[in-house]
Amino acid sequence: MNKPVLHTILSPKLLKLYDCNNAVVVIIDVFRATSTIATALFNGAKCIIPVDSVEKCIAIGAQTKGITAGERDGKVIEGLQYGNSPAEYPESFIKGKTLVLTTTNGTKLLHIALNSGAEKVITGSFPNLSAVCDYLIAENKNVILACSAWKDKFNLEDTLFAGAVVNKVKEHFTIHCDSSLMAEEMYKLHQYDMLSFIRSLTHWHRLEKFGLEKDLEYCVTPDVANILPLYKNGALVVG
Amino acid sequence: MNKPVLHTILSPKLLKLYDCNNAVVVIIDVFRATSTIATALFNGAKCIIPVDSVEKCIAIGAQTKGITAGERDGKVIEGLQYGNSPAEYPESFIKGKTLVLTTTNGTKLLHIALNSGAEKVITGSFPNLSAVCDYLIAENKNVILACSAWKDKFNLEDTLFAGAVVNKVKEHFTIHCDSSLMAEEMYKLHQYDMLSFIRSLTHWHRLEKFGLEKDLEYCVTPDVANILPLYKNGALVVG
Repeated sequence: MNKPVLHTILSPKLLKLYDCNNAVVVIIDVFRATSTIATALFNGAKCIIPVDSVEKCIAIGAQTKGITAGERDGKVIEGLQYGNSPAEYPESFIKGKTLVLTTTNGTKLLHIALNSGAEKVITGSFPNLSAVCDYLIAENKNVILACSAWKDKFNLEDTLFAGAVVNKVKEHFTIHCDSSLMAEEMYKLHQYDMLSFIRSLTHWHRLEKFGLEKDLEYCVTPDVANILPLYKNGALVVG
Repeated sequence: MNKPVLHTILSPKLLKLYDCNNAVVVIIDVFRATSTIATALFNGAKCIIPVDSVEKCIAIGAQTKGITAGERDGKVIEGLQYGNSPAEYPESFIKGKTLVLTTTNGTKLLHIALNSGAEKVITGSFPNLSAVCDYLIAENKNVILACSAWKDKFNLEDTLFAGAVVNKVKEHFTIHCDSSLMAEEMYKLHQYDMLSFIRSLTHWHRLEKFGLEKDLEYCVTPDVANILPLYKNGALVVG
């Protein structure tokens, strides 16, 4: 029996080059949207509504009585209530609530993916690594691991997560894809020095000045919010 | 004194995200356009006219009494005389002649780069690795290492070459670029097993069926055609 095919894309600009029809697309934005999404759902959020503009965030926040949250370039957006840090969403705060979220990269890519013909769109990050891998194996469909990158520029943190997934699911898929090969090699090279290696990444330097070191360390810790965010009827819910 | 800045781009689709003004752009198409270009110039070709369509190749070939050459998807194009293999251009054949060349990826990216505001456009490949590095250091300008990829999809052979350049020139440049960091790490990981590693790449499997193993091995051999192809007045000449 033929195995389904897995590809990794390194920038939203490259998504159109691949056939997403009937595939599962995994949105990856390690620093920090998809880590925050996993964490908020794990801590009991009712759902997360990802939106691609601040205006929609405010409007939908008002309609749903949800919490509006978002960042651009690492900072909370004026007019919104909260930011894009997993640490902002402990169970004591987020349980049972709706979170309306807009971010620089991750929520934008998610909306591109929703228009790509994908059958399922989920989000992935180290905090929910195992849940993502288990889901992909169980679904047994073609997979696109879609890195959000930084304003369409390649980044390593998303690539490392894609590589972690490849490493854990590869026997279940046909993989002829240099992006996936590279991603897995980078993951294998750094899986045991992740906390020091991320200090050499451009995004670390971008966010470090906001005092986010602990946030970023959390975002590369596997399975601390091990739940599956699945897009359904306009929102990410526990899949 | 500030050092000039170096970036690596992993697909032609990402070139527009970077400021190419006054920069040196290095076109990289290891399998095989830029390896062939270095080889033909090293073996005495008068110049190489890179064109982005078959029609132009035939027309300019007739005007210049040049040799028309090109491939699409690894095969010689109908209507052209020669292909995209370095082995087709020994000194005994190419010396003093004009080569008009069109290829799937490399010559297309070169034309994108010519419209990017770049001050200089050169081509790079393992056969002319040292010549490229020496030139970049001497010019002391911002650099874009531009991987041609395969139909805009990331490939590893171009990335490995970019990584080799980063490895050799990095002390002369400011490099805050995850693509460059990744490329250098992949190069360091595989610089001593290149001939076996390239057998795992998607492009190897694409070209292997045409009996091109020797060609591909040549294309990852450093400094066997160590000359600098520089774009000037419509053609690549020895820089």
